[in-house]
Amino acid sequence: MSVAMKQDQQPYYVGIDGGGTKCRAVMFNHKQQVVGTGLAGPANVARYGIRALHAMVDAVHDAIQNSDAGSSLHCEDLHVSAGLAGANLSEARLQLNEWRHPFKCFSFTSDLHTALLGAHAGADGAVLIVGTGSCAAALKDETLTQIGGHGFLLGDKGSGAWLGKQALTLTLETLDKAAPLNVLSEQVCKRFATHSPLALVERFNSAMPSTFAQLAPLVLQCAIDGDPQALKIVRDGADYLSTIAQEAISQSDGDLVLVGGVAQPISRWLSSSVRERIVAARKGPEWGAYFYQTKQHNMKEKSV
Amino acid sequence: MSVAMKQDQQPYYVGIDGGGTKCRAVMFNHKQQVVGTGLAGPANVARYGIRALHAMVDAVHDAIQNSDAGSSLHCEDLHVSAGLAGANLSEARLQLNEWRHPFKCFSFTSDLHTALLGAHAGADGAVLIVGTGSCAAALKDETLTQIGGHGFLLGDKGSGAWLGKQALTLTLETLDKAAPLNVLSEQVCKRFATHSPLALVERFNSAMPSTFAQLAPLVLQCAIDGDPQALKIVRDGADYLSTIAQEAISQSDGDLVLVGGVAQPISRWLSSSVRERIVAARKGPEWGAYFYQTKQHNMKEKSV
Repeated sequence: MSVAMKQDQQPYYVGIDGGGTKCRAVMFNHKQQVVGTGLAGPANVARYGIRALHAMVDAVHDAIQNSDAGSSLHCEDLHVSAGLAGANLSEARLQLNEWRHPFKCFSFTSDLHTALLGAHAGADGAVLIVGTGSCAAALKDETLTQIGGHGFLLGDKGSGAWLGKQALTLTLETLDKAAPLNVLSEQVCKRFATHSPLALVERFNSAMPSTFAQLAPLVLQCAIDGDPQALKIVRDGADYLSTIAQEAISQSDGDLVLVGGVAQPISRWLSSSVRERIVAARKGPEWGAYFYQTKQHNMKEKSV
Repeated sequence: MSVAMKQDQQPYYVGIDGGGTKCRAVMFNHKQQVVGTGLAGPANVARYGIRALHAMVDAVHDAIQNSDAGSSLHCEDLHVSAGLAGANLSEARLQLNEWRHPFKCFSFTSDLHTALLGAHAGADGAVLIVGTGSCAAALKDETLTQIGGHGFLLGDKGSGAWLGKQALTLTLETLDKAAPLNVLSEQVCKRFATHSPLALVERFNSAMPSTFAQLAPLVLQCAIDGDPQALKIVRDGADYLSTIAQEAISQSDGDLVLVGGVAQPISRWLSSSVRERIVAARKGPEWGAYFYQTKQHNMKEKSV
C-alpha cells in the first residue's frame, strides 16, 4: 500500500484523453473532484507506438506535479484509464494489453468512446469529433456506433490534417498552373518560404498528420476571407462532417456535442439541421475515461 | 576488358524503366538493336530504397539471360542508364549517386524524362503518364517541364493508386452510410470478402501505392458499366489529367503521347482537345534511358 493510500485511504483516479497531437490527463479524487491536470505529446499508439505510451506516463506525472497531493503521490498509486486515438486497431490493442504500465491499474478504450461518455455524462447522445482526425459516434442503450474515423490516408475528411493535406495538394496544383490562382496557396508558399513543388513534397511526404493539421487555421481563415478555393475545400469537408453527424444523431436519438480543436471553427459550414442539434459538452473526455473505468469496475464487481 | 568486349569489341547498353510497380530493362547492341529484355520488381528508390537498386540489377540479369549473348555477357560489361520513379527527390538522388553498382557505368534521371525522350524519339513533345502515379511533361528546346507527379500522398490524381485509394475511401463511406449504395463498393467488399471498415483500414493503412493500383481496373470497369459513384471518381481524376496534359501540350508545342498502364483505359474520359493531340509513342522509355546516356556521353566528349 502506497504512502498516499496510507495517508487518506482513498483512491485517486486519472482519466487520459490521448489524441494524435497531444495527450491530456485529469486526476480525480474519490469525490469525483479534479485535483490535478497534466499534458504531454501525442498518444496515438497505432502511429507512435512506444512514444505514445511514454506520453501517457508523462501526462500522468505532470498531473501529479500539478496537484496538491503532488509530493506524496506516485504512479503506482493511481487507477488510470485512457481514451486513445487508434486504440481500435488490433496491433495497437495488442501493444496496450502487453504494456507493463507503472500504474496501480490501467484500462483503455477508443478516444471516441471516452469523448462520447464525457460529452453526455454517460447518457445517450452523439458526438462529432474534429481535431487532427474526424469521426462521429452515437451512444444508444450502451451500444456505441462509430461513423468515419478511418485515419489520415483513407478517411478523416474535414479534419485538421485533411484540411492541411488539401491545402498542400491545392498549392502543388496551383504552382503547376493546374488550379486557378488563389490566396490559400500564396499563404502556404509564404509560410514555407518556397515556390518549389519539390521542396513542399519533400517537407511533407512523410510528415505526421499533426504537422498537416497545423495548416488548418490558415485554410479556415482563407475560407472566412472568401477565397473560393479555400471555401471549396472547407465546404467539401463540412458536407462530409454534416453527413456523419446526421447519421450519429439519427442513431443515438439524442443531441450532438462538438469535440476537438477544429469542430468549433468549422461548425459554421455544417448543415442547419445538424447545427440546431448542437449542445455543450457536459464533461470532458478525461472524465469519460474515468467514468469508463468506474463502469468497468462496477461491472466486474457485479459479475463476481 | 571483359569477355564480351574481347569477342566483338562492341559495347552493350541497357536502358531501364523503373516504376512504382515494376522495372523493365532493354539491352541494345552498338547498332541500337534490341538484343534482350528483362523484368523485375518496383524500382522507386525514394519509396523502396535498396530493394529498388536490387530490382535494377535483377532486371539487367534477366535481360542478359534473355539475350543471345547470354552466357558471355556480365553486368560489369554493360553501360546502364535508368529512368526512375522518385529519382527527382534529393534523398533518392543521394542514394543513387552513392550506389556501388555492378555495371561498367551507370547514369540515371527521372522516369518522366526517359518516357519523354522515348515517346518522341528525342524530339520536342509532351507526355501524359498514368500508371501507379500520374504526371505530365513537356520537352521543348531540350528543356524539360514537369507538371504534377507529386506522389501518392499529395498528388498523382487520376493515377492507378489514386483510383484505388478513392475506391477504398468510397467503400468506407458507403459502409458508414455516408455515401449512397454503389456497385463499386460492393465489388471492393466482395474482392476482400469483408464488410468491416476496420478490416479494410488495417489491410490498406500501410499498403504501397502499387497495392492500391491493383484496384484501378475494377474502378474503371464500374465506371464503364455506369456506376455513378465510380464515374464520379474517374471523371474527377480524368479532369485533372486533362488539365495537366493540356498544360504540357501548350508548353511543348508538340503532340501528346500516353504512357503507363492506366493511360489508355482512362483516355476516353479526357477532354476532346487533349484527345485529338494524342499520337503513338515512337520508342519506349527504355530506349529513352539509352538515348539519355548516349547524349550525356556525347556532351562529355564534346566538353573534353
